[in-house]
Amino acid sequence: MVIMTTAEATPARLLRTPPALAAAALGHYAATYGRSVLELDQALAAAPAPDDLVDLTHGDTRAFVPPAAAAADFDAAVAENTEAYTAYRGSAGLRSALAPRLARLLGRPVDADSELIITPGTQGGLYAALSALVSPGDVVALPDPEYFMSERILAYLGATPHRLPLTQDRRGLLTIAAGALDAAAAAGARLLVLSHPNNPTGGVYAPEAARALAAFVTGNDMLAVADQLYCRLIFGVEYVHLSAEPGMAERTVTLAGPSKTESMSGYRVGAAVGPAPVIDAMERVLSLAALRTAGYGQQALRHWMDGDAAWLAERTAAHQALRDKLVARLTDIPGVTAAPPAGSSYVFPDVSRAPGGGPDDHAVAVALKAAGVLVSPGYQFGPAGRGRFRINFSQDAARLALACDRIEAVLRG
Amino acid sequence: MVIMTTAEATPARLLRTPPALAAAALGHYAATYGRSVLELDQALAAAPAPDDLVDLTHGDTRAFVPPAAAAADFDAAVAENTEAYTAYRGSAGLRSALAPRLARLLGRPVDADSELIITPGTQGGLYAALSALVSPGDVVALPDPEYFMSERILAYLGATPHRLPLTQDRRGLLTIAAGALDAAAAAGARLLVLSHPNNPTGGVYAPEAARALAAFVTGNDMLAVADQLYCRLIFGVEYVHLSAEPGMAERTVTLAGPSKTESMSGYRVGAAVGPAPVIDAMERVLSLAALRTAGYGQQALRHWMDGDAAWLAERTAAHQALRDKLVARLTDIPGVTAAPPAGSSYVFPDVSRAPGGGPDDHAVAVALKAAGVLVSPGYQFGPAGRGRFRINFSQDAARLALACDRIEAVLRG
Repeated sequence: MVIMTTAEATPARLLRTPPALAAAALGHYAATYGRSVLELDQALAAAPAPDDLVDLTHGDTRAFVPPAAAAADFDAAVAENTEAYTAYRGSAGLRSALAPRLARLLGRPVDADSELIITPGTQGGLYAALSALVSPGDVVALPDPEYFMSERILAYLGATPHRLPLTQDRRGLLTIAAGALDAAAAAGARLLVLSHPNNPTGGVYAPEAARALAAFVTGNDMLAVADQLYCRLIFGVEYVHLSAEPGMAERTVTLAGPSKTESMSGYRVGAAVGPAPVIDAMERVLSLAALRTAGYGQQALRHWMDGDAAWLAERTAAHQALRDKLVARLTDIPGVTAAPPAGSSYVFPDVSRAPGGGPDDHAVAVALKAAGVLVSPGYQFGPAGRGRFRINFSQDAARLALACDRIEAVLRG
Repeated sequence: MVIMTTAEATPARLLRTPPALAAAALGHYAATYGRSVLELDQALAAAPAPDDLVDLTHGDTRAFVPPAAAAADFDAAVAENTEAYTAYRGSAGLRSALAPRLARLLGRPVDADSELIITPGTQGGLYAALSALVSPGDVVALPDPEYFMSERILAYLGATPHRLPLTQDRRGLLTIAAGALDAAAAAGARLLVLSHPNNPTGGVYAPEAARALAAFVTGNDMLAVADQLYCRLIFGVEYVHLSAEPGMAERTVTLAGPSKTESMSGYRVGAAVGPAPVIDAMERVLSLAALRTAGYGQQALRHWMDGDAAWLAERTAAHQALRDKLVARLTDIPGVTAAPPAGSSYVFPDVSRAPGGGPDDHAVAVALKAAGVLVSPGYQFGPAGRGRFRINFSQDAARLALACDRIEAVLRG
């Protein structure tokens, strides 16, 4: 994963790094790792690897392919050629088709005109939502660990994350201590940003924990951004949609998209549902950043979530089987613990006490890379990532088994 | 064109508009029009129109279709399914293929690894370049008139445009008075941002004017962002590539893409060439805003500019014929003047002295919309847009003739 490199040539005084970009360096990681996040990223990107590297940082779209409708719908859009240019918030026809499906998914009404925007992937929705809501100096409540880009975008926007430590039980369910929420409120947090299921743990908030989060937001007059990219890939536990809780629809931007469960990342499309004025502001950001989500690409969503229950059940079962095998293999290694994720295709083992592991997750990731497995080291997800790494197990079963062999060889030391 | 709307519902104290978004309101237009840019945009979007509106704000991708290779290359990428995830700066294989073509186009060497990034359209390149280069408080030299999004992005980033008035001659060639460049330097401008050919006039900088701009940048130790989206659609005049001038390759980010000449806007892909540290910073911005340009979409560029001289000559001749007919029709209307564009598919007539026109280009655009023609009013492009509007003449000839009939009826009064 190549993320960022530092400036070298070019008259330095010309390329003044804007303060916001400088902030994204997230230098506070240096206290733990002796290097900034950028330096850690670069060191891992530059670390040697054998030719046959198994990349577990993202899903394998050949092992789990997109639904056939995606390519057919895209091709139809190219042939029709009437939607190369759409409203900045996306095709009106597409939004009309998606609004009832999103309403069914999220358990709340969705107005196609005012409460829905088509985004360049779920990442594009996250960036637009945070850009629309966050001012420099804002305090933002953010779970620990959490999707690495949330912290980086917040830093870029000049906001300060206030971390909420997560606890994950043996069923993969997450809770946050009441005291942590109180502390965030006392610190002046006005926005809650979280992924649900949580990236990187695959944890699903226990129903009572989700309701406590909703009460935290409404009780403190806050807003929430819920990245629900993985909310359709749930392994038999109850899933509470934050925006369906009392008082939350008008306070929550929910991000969804087909990049993961449907393996449609290559199309770069997603959808965000939220209060009309926030969607308006997100559209302003998107218009500056890219005008609109690709006109043809938008149409790959035509049949997204359109009566695909059987398809979804099959895909979920396949991932659940991979999860079970992977968690068993990992926890079989001495010193390794791993909660089984209740959703998503991520697992986030703790290898800090393994003979070949240790608390320095960056060093562990470098060692794994040398052994032929690329993982996402824990530091990327926050202080709670210490001694952990993230695996995306949406992979070909044989390749994943090969990766497990290599991981085991390294961790056994 | 729906751009922005104001916040209404949602607890106002929660949706604090970030300062940068507020600045994008560009309230300074109120001095001339009595309304901010956002209010002007909204009023035009809400203005009534007949059912059969001829939309001249963008090209008609059915009148001029994308090259057949685009869809074929996209479909091949979906079938191969190996590049759903790429480096944030784009597929390494694609960059290797494009670098020599871009080098040939721009008349300068292009290193595929360090000096090239694939962007979500040329707009995505513009946003990433300005985000990478501009700090709050910067003064940025910007022609008047200029592409409307450049001013909006600069305002969003907290920069102040310093306008450079353009003069366009009868051949469509542009010049900037030496005094205007001196004044910009004296005002502390450290960056030059311009489209070339100029949007909205279709003007091409006269060779001596382009060289003066290069000397302005190098002589004042500045950087430049050159949006060359239309640089392949030139009507028989000499075109000087800014980054090929002495000392400019290391100071210039050049934006290119197939959205216009190749009618590929629906794919949302483009390319930017610039100094390695600036490309690095642009990649950081893009990673936050959307991770990457759509993986499959990137591959629609596989055959972009790949030995298409005959195709380009035909497309250019077709646009030149439309241009000649359109300029003749417009200048036939009493009180209307229009320089023939030397490139692009834009013409920017001055209708301030037409009986049914006038200096209030917003009012003229509202009247034209009521008569069945949607144009881009002059205010969007800067103070020099007063009494003008922009037409994109990449249209079906019969539809463009119908639009001309309607425009003529309004302007004759």
